Amino acid sequence: MSTTRLDAETIAALEADRRDRHQRALEAARALLELHGVDADRLVDEVREFSVAAPSWALGTGGTRFGRFPGAGEPRTVEEKLDDVAALNGLTGANRTVSLHVPWDEHDDMPALREYAASLGLRFDAMNSNTFQDNPSTTGDGAISYKFGSLAAADDRVREAAVEHNLHVIELGRLLGSTALSIWIPDGANHPGQTSFRRQFDRAAESLRRIHDALPADWLMFTEHKPYEPAFYSTVVSDWGSSLLLAQAAGPQARCLVDFGHHLPNTNVEQVVSRLAMTGRLGGFHFNDTKYGDDDVTVGSIAPFRMFLVFLELLEVGDGAMPTLAYLIDQSNNLKDPIEDLAQATDAIQHTLALALCVDRASLAAAQEADDPALAAEVLHAAFRADVRPLVAEARRLNGAALDPVTAYRRSGYRAAVAGDRGSGHVATGL
Amino acid sequence: MSTTRLDAETIAALEADRRDRHQRALEAARALLELHGVDADRLVDEVREFSVAAPSWALGTGGTRFGRFPGAGEPRTVEEKLDDVAALNGLTGANRTVSLHVPWDEHDDMPALREYAASLGLRFDAMNSNTFQDNPSTTGDGAISYKFGSLAAADDRVREAAVEHNLHVIELGRLLGSTALSIWIPDGANHPGQTSFRRQFDRAAESLRRIHDALPADWLMFTEHKPYEPAFYSTVVSDWGSSLLLAQAAGPQARCLVDFGHHLPNTNVEQVVSRLAMTGRLGGFHFNDTKYGDDDVTVGSIAPFRMFLVFLELLEVGDGAMPTLAYLIDQSNNLKDPIEDLAQATDAIQHTLALALCVDRASLAAAQEADDPALAAEVLHAAFRADVRPLVAEARRLNGAALDPVTAYRRSGYRAAVAGDRGSGHVATGL
Amino acid sequence: MSTTRLDAETIAALEADRRDRHQRALEAARALLELHGVDADRLVDEVREFSVAAPSWALGTGGTRFGRFPGAGEPRTVEEKLDDVAALNGLTGANRTVSLHVPWDEHDDMPALREYAASLGLRFDAMNSNTFQDNPSTTGDGAISYKFGSLAAADDRVREAAVEHNLHVIELGRLLGSTALSIWIPDGANHPGQTSFRRQFDRAAESLRRIHDALPADWLMFTEHKPYEPAFYSTVVSDWGSSLLLAQAAGPQARCLVDFGHHLPNTNVEQVVSRLAMTGRLGGFHFNDTKYGDDDVTVGSIAPFRMFLVFLELLEVGDGAMPTLAYLIDQSNNLKDPIEDLAQATDAIQHTLALALCVDRASLAAAQEADDPALAAEVLHAAFRADVRPLVAEARRLNGAALDPVTAYRRSGYRAAVAGDRGSGHVATGL
Amino acid sequence: MSTTRLDAETIAALEADRRDRHQRALEAARALLELHGVDADRLVDEVREFSVAAPSWALGTGGTRFGRFPGAGEPRTVEEKLDDVAALNGLTGANRTVSLHVPWDEHDDMPALREYAASLGLRFDAMNSNTFQDNPSTTGDGAISYKFGSLAAADDRVREAAVEHNLHVIELGRLLGSTALSIWIPDGANHPGQTSFRRQFDRAAESLRRIHDALPADWLMFTEHKPYEPAFYSTVVSDWGSSLLLAQAAGPQARCLVDFGHHLPNTNVEQVVSRLAMTGRLGGFHFNDTKYGDDDVTVGSIAPFRMFLVFLELLEVGDGAMPTLAYLIDQSNNLKDPIEDLAQATDAIQHTLALALCVDRASLAAAQEADDPALAAEVLHAAFRADVRPLVAEARRLNGAALDPVTAYRRSGYRAAVAGDRGSGHVATGL
Repeated sequence: MSTTRLDAETIAALEADRRDRHQRALEAARALLELHGVDADRLVDEVREFSVAAPSWALGTGGTRFGRFPGAGEPRTVEEKLDDVAALNGLTGANRTVSLHVPWDEHDDMPALREYAASLGLRFDAMNSNTFQDNPSTTGDGAISYKFGSLAAADDRVREAAVEHNLHVIELGRLLGSTALSIWIPDGANHPGQTSFRRQFDRAAESLRRIHDALPADWLMFTEHKPYEPAFYSTVVSDWGSSLLLAQAAGPQARCLVDFGHHLPNTNVEQVVSRLAMTGRLGGFHFNDTKYGDDDVTVGSIAPFRMFLVFLELLEVGDGAMPTLAYLIDQSNNLKDPIEDLAQATDAIQHTLALALCVDRASLAAAQEADDPALAAEVLHAAFRADVRPLVAEARRLNGAALDPVTAYRRSGYRAAVAGDRGSGHVATGL
Repeated sequence: MSTTRLDAETIAALEADRRDRHQRALEAARALLELHGVDADRLVDEVREFSVAAPSWALGTGGTRFGRFPGAGEPRTVEEKLDDVAALNGLTGANRTVSLHVPWDEHDDMPALREYAASLGLRFDAMNSNTFQDNPSTTGDGAISYKFGSLAAADDRVREAAVEHNLHVIELGRLLGSTALSIWIPDGANHPGQTSFRRQFDRAAESLRRIHDALPADWLMFTEHKPYEPAFYSTVVSDWGSSLLLAQAAGPQARCLVDFGHHLPNTNVEQVVSRLAMTGRLGGFHFNDTKYGDDDVTVGSIAPFRMFLVFLELLEVGDGAMPTLAYLIDQSNNLKDPIEDLAQATDAIQHTLALALCVDRASLAAAQEADDPALAAEVLHAAFRADVRPLVAEARRLNGAALDPVTAYRRSGYRAAVAGDRGSGHVATGL
Repeated sequence: MSTTRLDAETIAALEADRRDRHQRALEAARALLELHGVDADRLVDEVREFSVAAPSWALGTGGTRFGRFPGAGEPRTVEEKLDDVAALNGLTGANRTVSLHVPWDEHDDMPALREYAASLGLRFDAMNSNTFQDNPSTTGDGAISYKFGSLAAADDRVREAAVEHNLHVIELGRLLGSTALSIWIPDGANHPGQTSFRRQFDRAAESLRRIHDALPADWLMFTEHKPYEPAFYSTVVSDWGSSLLLAQAAGPQARCLVDFGHHLPNTNVEQVVSRLAMTGRLGGFHFNDTKYGDDDVTVGSIAPFRMFLVFLELLEVGDGAMPTLAYLIDQSNNLKDPIEDLAQATDAIQHTLALALCVDRASLAAAQEADDPALAAEVLHAAFRADVRPLVAEARRLNGAALDPVTAYRRSGYRAAVAGDRGSGHVATGL
Repeated sequence: MSTTRLDAETIAALEADRRDRHQRALEAARALLELHGVDADRLVDEVREFSVAAPSWALGTGGTRFGRFPGAGEPRTVEEKLDDVAALNGLTGANRTVSLHVPWDEHDDMPALREYAASLGLRFDAMNSNTFQDNPSTTGDGAISYKFGSLAAADDRVREAAVEHNLHVIELGRLLGSTALSIWIPDGANHPGQTSFRRQFDRAAESLRRIHDALPADWLMFTEHKPYEPAFYSTVVSDWGSSLLLAQAAGPQARCLVDFGHHLPNTNVEQVVSRLAMTGRLGGFHFNDTKYGDDDVTVGSIAPFRMFLVFLELLEVGDGAMPTLAYLIDQSNNLKDPIEDLAQATDAIQHTLALALCVDRASLAAAQEADDPALAAEVLHAAFRADVRPLVAEARRLNGAALDPVTAYRRSGYRAAVAGDRGSGHVATGL
């Protein structure tokens, strides 16, 4: 295990030369924000409180179907993934949980893993089951295959195996202290005629019901919609409407996740968040960014205003504060150092939360009720155009994390150190 | 009123020289289809039985926001619109009902109108209310305006007027023998912040409930989703999920319509049909075609295979026959003669229905259950690649309509005759 | 003519209570920006220098094909449009030119109009010809029609008339002191088969060559691409590639315009700007914003980061300063007061220019050449996340315009005053 | 090497029971087509003449970034790939060439490979270079990497290696008798700021020029545009305009390829074909089908009418016959047996060509010139709605191939035979 720890003390030392500049920036930003009536202290407190789970499958360099270019020092074990999350959390102060993917993160001693995570200050978020690949451990060395589907497959044995796998993942999650199961059903069709929309849906609903029956009382279970990929004509959880119907069919502990990249072109994602919240079935949000499809690129890199609007809807759900939902970064960057990529993502999330907290929600509602769209736009822009960076940095500092995560990380030499320990040329499990 | 009637006798005379050719084509087509196991007689019967409503607002030349180029002899009154639908139905034998739009089709003697329609062999399909324009009769000469919304408006008086208008339209419909009300809610927003998604939705739901309460027991009421236009950022009935939630909120007689052009890019429309049918809330289908948005171009002109797949889903609902739903052509062609445009649309619908009836549904289901996508594709293509034109022509002939509607229409001199009666240079009400 | 003038003195008086707050904000913003190495003075100077043309057709309330809801006091004459632009320019200091549309803005005494504009501090930007509507003055009272096309029509007489109209517009422009002609060719097709792509293109090229031949030596002529609307299957200037080929065919004074809303879903607009600039044929940019299509909504209201990226490309063309191109706001808002809408648009443009000027272009280029995408992202975000509002306000103040245009406008009572003069209930020419 | 040969005799025997049915179908189809004025003999001749290259990388089961499910008996060597293409060509009579991908198809004795292909009746089509993956043979065991680009990379050594690789592929192609090189440049960016559009383009142009300089005099070289994937924000050959500029920069032997899936949503692909043809730079077409992006699913499975329209444009280029261009199937099906998938693709291509040949091009042009869109639509539909299957089958029969390729293949037991020879569980090279 790596001995490089990015704890508060280390980070403070790495950034000693930045402290003074930060103080001056903080003062100026506070002054500006106060002119707009923003309560800077409350904003800092809210940002400090927020945490978003890190995905165990994004600590290695991601790939596309065209290829994969792994970097140096990718984690070889679940423990090494936890080390990397701990480093990330050291930088951001806002990645206090990690989300595992099984069988990629299968481990023979879950209690020990839980203890190891605790020693790093980490807990386990939602567990993810994987029924989109054939793995010796999940498809019985070829006894069955997920080639033609999993929880919605026509073949009874395949559905049975897929349900069993999910029950197994729940079991592992209990040992880790997790309280949620995320199920992404990859089933669909590549061409018209390949499947019956109705029968496929009914089979998915039946499988989800069976898994729901096995949920511990304090657990939630998440469905997640996506219009295409890996299936190229249709998917069984194609849109939020289908996701909602499946959650309703599964049972009262089922909720729906929203992922930025799982929508058709031009979708109004913030409205999807509002709709699901309205039904009481919004379960959480998967953060990344997208220009074309499920691009899984860095949060905030493509459409930061769209993310701001999503945060406004989340604050609407929480009546001005972030509601308790499952928040996860779900990226698959194939070029950047994975920790830098996740640090930039977390920073973008913190930044956007801070901007959204600047919105004068009462004035906005008043403009809306008065049919005054120009004024409503002024209210939104008054928030989005603010500079909240020093406050976000201050929130991180108060959490013992970095003013400037990427710079601190580069100064720390973390990657070189783990590359020395772990070597290069291998590929971490994940996408 | 026009004296040009396209009745069975007239049309037969116009096509006398085509009869022999038709017989030879019919024979050859039957021979080919029988080699594929198609029951040609049943196919002809099903096509004969099918009818799709004509929209009163598409008998004039449509326009865009950039301009409008009206043609000669556009109908000036509701009666003249009915004359044109009668001519259309004479050509196709499959447009036996007409759908009115109020206040465009407001009339001071509805019983007389009903009688006039009956004299032309026509009945009245779903009534359409219009709350997307300010009209002296519906907005009280400026007392209120639909500028900022209608059934979901923030202003109580606007919602009240919009509900009242719908109740009025129900009343007119009763006098006409209609049994359904189609409500398209144009409300939305042009920019983020302009409205609250949640409050706007709640107001729409409340308005629909009030209208539902006023429905006669044998009536249905339809909601219709559309992601944008005239609103350019969001709409209150943005997608089928929202449409379903609103129909559920309104009451048991509420159903959802699907229109080809009311979807985001790349939407799997046939799956949307399947989903709504599954919930028991599919109310009908609005036929047109689209490449980009709500283009409202001629049915079958852009993506005939997609329409074929929609018909397969409708046949799935009807277990092999067309289910009793509200079918309407909803086009707005700005170049063609409107009657030619509607005749081509109806022909395309009849043609596609015939193709869909060629599908060996049992073999398709077997291939699906056997995870044999290549075979499933073969089954679909065996139907879609057939030549069913002579059977469609035969169905029309047996219904007293034209073998070849466009040619018969051009030969009839109908347009020149009504242009003589009606004159030119005016614009029929509609879009 | 309206007597309400929004001159520097009037505006200063309207905002007297804001001066102190502005000074404090300016100081804080300067301090923050200097910590990021931004040269605040240069930024203010660049913003002061920038001007974007106002479109004469956006001073009335825009409409959609579904309807139009005019507001109070819409301009009835070209002079009243100029009054409104003068008011706008008084507020922003950055709309010093106006772009006319003929025949909407046809006038029988162009020299007098030029003089009147000069008296308001305004000049004339590119002239726009209109061949997408039949107007008595352009289509000879029905002698020809643009229904089936204009500069690319199959009918020789139609093309002839369309060319003649453009020559007429050049003539008018000369009288006004304009030096450019913007040609938007609406020709296309609604269905496959309606036109030959090749023949239609060749006819468009030939017409443009003829117009180019008539250009004064110091004039430019602009083509503008758009994939659809009003044509719904294809257009003759469908994309930047087609626009470039047509400009090359027309002659050396032909350039290509880019409009935000004239692209297919997911288009990388900033790359289109770069490509056209690379060929030496980038002529200008039409500002608005879009979520779905040619939505023509307020600049910066949907995707402010995308606009920021476009400005980066423009600064690339100008090597760090804005290049001399044709900049125009091209909106069609149907809800807001048109002057408020244009003021918000201009403010958004000034704001985005200021943000783009904050980019450390040398560091960005260095990160690009070093294959360091994470660092490149840091450089971009360091600019985009800044608060430049006080500097933009300062630039406006130094230009004699408003710190806060919308508030100053509302305080001024301009709309009520012109509504008193002009009355209500009429619709200004435009879209 | 496999001993299973699908030669004319074998196939005739497999389909002996189908011959009679075919004759009856052929007779009926001829009768029907003659009623529409189609010259059936000429149609059969044109279909017989047409051939489309098979891609060596689609003979194994394709994958997505989420996983791969290989089938039984996938080819292990280039020779086995040729065996599979020979089987395919036996079934269709229309896959007489194969396109190789290097280094996937690197071989140490190219002359022997050429001889082996000749013994199977096959020749070599365009060669494909691969600079989107790091391979020991192309990236010098890690000396360089294509992670951040290839022919447009910022790093000189990377561009050098990428150019060298292409020169090597030309050399191999000469030995095989190929006369074309296909270059797909994967370079792009995942986020705004990662690259300079302009510098990246210039580097790509320079690299292509260098490769062009090395082309034998009778060779062509192809560029191929694609808006995204594997890069998720921008690509250097993003659209046909960029492809054209690069081909022009490279030299006179450079041409542009069009692939169905390499376009933004709603692109008018047939117009892109027309535009490139007009410039004289259309090089060929890559066949597959798509609903969302570069889905690479079976030709004709999603939008058969769109493909029909593309064939109309190709026939326009060839003045009624298929022009001599590079035609290639480029699919990556992950579910079907690869040979069945390619046989269905080829059948769909033959079928669509036959339909396109049914179009009365003179009548279509007349309707276009007469501004008669309704008539133009009638002309198109008269062709698209025909049943040409018996004529396509006859063309195959006359070429010694199968009436019904999928059925004949299944009867032949080919897959089981090669699975016996080759075993299972390995994955063929390719995507």
